[in-house]
Amino acid sequence: MIGSESKQDIPTSLPIGNDVELSELAVRFGGEMIGPNVLLHGVAPLHRAGSGELAFLSNPRYVEQVAQSRAGAVLVHRSDLAKLQHRSTCSWLVVANPYACFARAAQLFSAQPAYQPGRCASADIDASAQVPQSCQIGPFVSIGPGVVLGERVKLLGHTHIGAGVRIGDDTLIYSRVSVYDACVIGARCIVHSGAVIGSDGFGFAPDFSSTGGQWVKIPQTGRAVLGDDVELGANSTIDRGAMDDTVIEMGCKIDNQVQIAHNVRVGAFTVIAGTAAIAGSTTIGKYCMVGGAANIAGHLTIADKVIISGGTAITKSIPAAGHFTAVFPFMPHSEWEKNAAVLKQLSKLRARLRQIEFAFFNKK
Amino acid sequence: MIGSESKQDIPTSLPIGNDVELSELAVRFGGEMIGPNVLLHGVAPLHRAGSGELAFLSNPRYVEQVAQSRAGAVLVHRSDLAKLQHRSTCSWLVVANPYACFARAAQLFSAQPAYQPGRCASADIDASAQVPQSCQIGPFVSIGPGVVLGERVKLLGHTHIGAGVRIGDDTLIYSRVSVYDACVIGARCIVHSGAVIGSDGFGFAPDFSSTGGQWVKIPQTGRAVLGDDVELGANSTIDRGAMDDTVIEMGCKIDNQVQIAHNVRVGAFTVIAGTAAIAGSTTIGKYCMVGGAANIAGHLTIADKVIISGGTAITKSIPAAGHFTAVFPFMPHSEWEKNAAVLKQLSKLRARLRQIEFAFFNKK
Amino acid sequence: MIGSESKQDIPTSLPIGNDVELSELAVRFGGEMIGPNVLLHGVAPLHRAGSGELAFLSNPRYVEQVAQSRAGAVLVHRSDLAKLQHRSTCSWLVVANPYACFARAAQLFSAQPAYQPGRCASADIDASAQVPQSCQIGPFVSIGPGVVLGERVKLLGHTHIGAGVRIGDDTLIYSRVSVYDACVIGARCIVHSGAVIGSDGFGFAPDFSSTGGQWVKIPQTGRAVLGDDVELGANSTIDRGAMDDTVIEMGCKIDNQVQIAHNVRVGAFTVIAGTAAIAGSTTIGKYCMVGGAANIAGHLTIADKVIISGGTAITKSIPAAGHFTAVFPFMPHSEWEKNAAVLKQLSKLRARLRQIEFAFFNKK
Repeated sequence: MIGSESKQDIPTSLPIGNDVELSELAVRFGGEMIGPNVLLHGVAPLHRAGSGELAFLSNPRYVEQVAQSRAGAVLVHRSDLAKLQHRSTCSWLVVANPYACFARAAQLFSAQPAYQPGRCASADIDASAQVPQSCQIGPFVSIGPGVVLGERVKLLGHTHIGAGVRIGDDTLIYSRVSVYDACVIGARCIVHSGAVIGSDGFGFAPDFSSTGGQWVKIPQTGRAVLGDDVELGANSTIDRGAMDDTVIEMGCKIDNQVQIAHNVRVGAFTVIAGTAAIAGSTTIGKYCMVGGAANIAGHLTIADKVIISGGTAITKSIPAAGHFTAVFPFMPHSEWEKNAAVLKQLSKLRARLRQIEFAFFNKK
Repeated sequence: MIGSESKQDIPTSLPIGNDVELSELAVRFGGEMIGPNVLLHGVAPLHRAGSGELAFLSNPRYVEQVAQSRAGAVLVHRSDLAKLQHRSTCSWLVVANPYACFARAAQLFSAQPAYQPGRCASADIDASAQVPQSCQIGPFVSIGPGVVLGERVKLLGHTHIGAGVRIGDDTLIYSRVSVYDACVIGARCIVHSGAVIGSDGFGFAPDFSSTGGQWVKIPQTGRAVLGDDVELGANSTIDRGAMDDTVIEMGCKIDNQVQIAHNVRVGAFTVIAGTAAIAGSTTIGKYCMVGGAANIAGHLTIADKVIISGGTAITKSIPAAGHFTAVFPFMPHSEWEKNAAVLKQLSKLRARLRQIEFAFFNKK
Repeated sequence: MIGSESKQDIPTSLPIGNDVELSELAVRFGGEMIGPNVLLHGVAPLHRAGSGELAFLSNPRYVEQVAQSRAGAVLVHRSDLAKLQHRSTCSWLVVANPYACFARAAQLFSAQPAYQPGRCASADIDASAQVPQSCQIGPFVSIGPGVVLGERVKLLGHTHIGAGVRIGDDTLIYSRVSVYDACVIGARCIVHSGAVIGSDGFGFAPDFSSTGGQWVKIPQTGRAVLGDDVELGANSTIDRGAMDDTVIEMGCKIDNQVQIAHNVRVGAFTVIAGTAAIAGSTTIGKYCMVGGAANIAGHLTIADKVIISGGTAITKSIPAAGHFTAVFPFMPHSEWEKNAAVLKQLSKLRARLRQIEFAFFNKK
């Protein structure tokens, strides 16, 4: 598996119907409780929270909402506490990262898919596959020869696990996923329905002459390898590499209908929003953010901490962190018709401007 | 379920091989028959219809085609009848909306997927699920606890229906669909293969410091809710909401590979063409038309009756009806290289133009 | 089936662990061996190949790599041989197309999915379906009435084959594919997981008035027809036609998450890269190359040998071969904000430039 520093907590839920005291959350999150030790049954945003719910403030713009909120307790950063304390009777939980703690609290209160270890009778599991008893294997799952699953792996149903695939502990795979032969998925991953991991990269050699020809398929003998703590959205596709692997490093979060071509490497903790696509052999750094519907061309290198706006096509390597955008601004259709036509003349317009500048400034 | 005004007719077919008299269609469609009561066995476009087929005219541009058509009968609007009657020996069916009636007639003549109520032996149906006898449950379908299906629901096979899902009467779900826990699908819906309803919205809280960190998953505890008469295309994905629901209102028609993020609301009778994507928490009005490959950013409000051209990125709210476009015009590659380079200088070009204008008009 | 000239070789593998002599490859590829008859166990790129591996040179830019390569043998074109022969002690295989032969050699050395003829017990095969004994039918496959499969068709699992579907010899369908009723797939095709063939085209007639209304579904009674030697990527979708068929001609290679709408015809040997989309009733010529994330509008005609860059929207027909691009160049976000704003003024800028030119050149 690929690395496991910053190992994520497995989301654990409280038993349904149980409340939790604020003091217990203070212990869990390493925070300081200020005010009464209220009993909480859930989380909610500031403007909607009730007395039994925990809210959070992370953006100073919403300070006013705190004063009006009826939340029983509010997660805050110490730097915001002074201006808030006198404005509300709620309790406070002072933490370094209110938003992240809110997410963790939400995990505590939310219902996880029911965990039912065991093998559904309809599952088709090869005799040579290693499937611990703690695994949950749902209906119509097929597991091929030589597969090795970790502890508590959950395959909710209708999923195909190809020969020799390895999946790490605590990984959850929703219904109807395909994992092609030999691929590797780390621990604590979540894979949503319809995802395909390890399909052939798109590789063909042209063999055409004046009398005809064909595209000759180049076998894709690498694998697709996902590190620990990766989440992959519904109907996303990750191709196996041509010879080397396609790699999604630890902690990446990938949304729905994302396409990742062969031999791409996505750096750790990078997030990729819905319908984005990354072409072959491109390397993306760590902690990047790729916007929805963005497209990154092949054979590029994108540095760490690069932010790519939604809808943006990246056609050259990006050597250093920064925020990059390429979006055609929308306008009423009739305006667009006039303006778009000029785009075909931009180079000539610039030449005409130069000519005027030259003529004018020389004449003076 | 969400509303059910304008309840759509369930497409019903004539028994294969049966013809229908034009007079019968007149009754069905509330139209006026003019000319002989011909026997019809099918529909076809004007330029291809034969004497046993029904065609239609809805666009005055095609009036000439009527004169040359060999159709046995033609659906027309009364306002076109006068200029047509003397030019053809076909029969006429005068209706308010020839195109829509043509579609309904086509439904009559087309073969529906065979309806076979009953449960395939290989289906895995939880004992607590309510599955009427009129339902058609195909091979390798899994239905979870607490599911409630309406009458004549058809699950053609290989589909996963999660716990607590509700599906309304007469809904047809093609093979290989995933519906996550607790989601709701209305009556008379059609869901195509590979669609995913209710996958987790894309929500993560950053928790990073100089020593590392992770993206903390925000549980997605809302649902995905589809109203009546919604059609959802192949491999489309609709995420569940973070706390509230993601809602597709009645009568929407959504094409293939469309991505709908968490907490989006799509207004009634809106159509969304293939590969479009709508980011989280955006509200789209009723009767909108979203073009193929369009992208709508998150947290926006789009009014009713807005038309968005294909390939267009919408990055701000649209407060009133209109037609909006943002498409980079295509050109020969060498032209594009010259013109695209100037795009990076547009702001400077404008400044230079201002300078020339100022200098020139001041000098005069 | 659609045509079968230029019938592709079925990739055959050597038994694992077997080496092959260079002379045998010379016979297979119709090439000339120069130098010792080395034993080869695999292929690799020039910079990584070892003494038991075959490499290739097709691009003169990499001539230097040949001198430094440790490959046992190198595929070359005769025109490159003279400048290379004295620079390396490897053996040579002189062929017309080194890259294509490299691909074929790679096929020989790569492991194919294991071929296991027979029907998995869990498969649900209609009694009227014709399924030769040479077919491989995996777990949880459903095959409908009247289906006709060719010899050695492999359905790896979890796939739905609708009524009346025909599939040609040697076609390989990976897990979790849906083929709707009546569709046709040629011989030697490869279909990747999650693909959907034959879903309804997106056709609706508006029937709205001041009191409400609906979109009336237009039945899609055509089929989706794939020729021989077509490869279709993961989660791609090909809609059936409205009345006529949607056609993918022989030898096309289509990547992942491509959307092909109803009544499109894609010409032979055209390649379409990932996430591209083609709208309804468009015809694309032969030997075209459609870049990733490109979008082609409907009802267009694209000539043969057209190259469309990635991310490009094609909105008009293209009557002759050429290379076309429409990509908004990316830039730092702050630059984009300044430049994109000017795009809404382009038409006015041009008018202002004309005005200056007129005033200036008239004054002189």
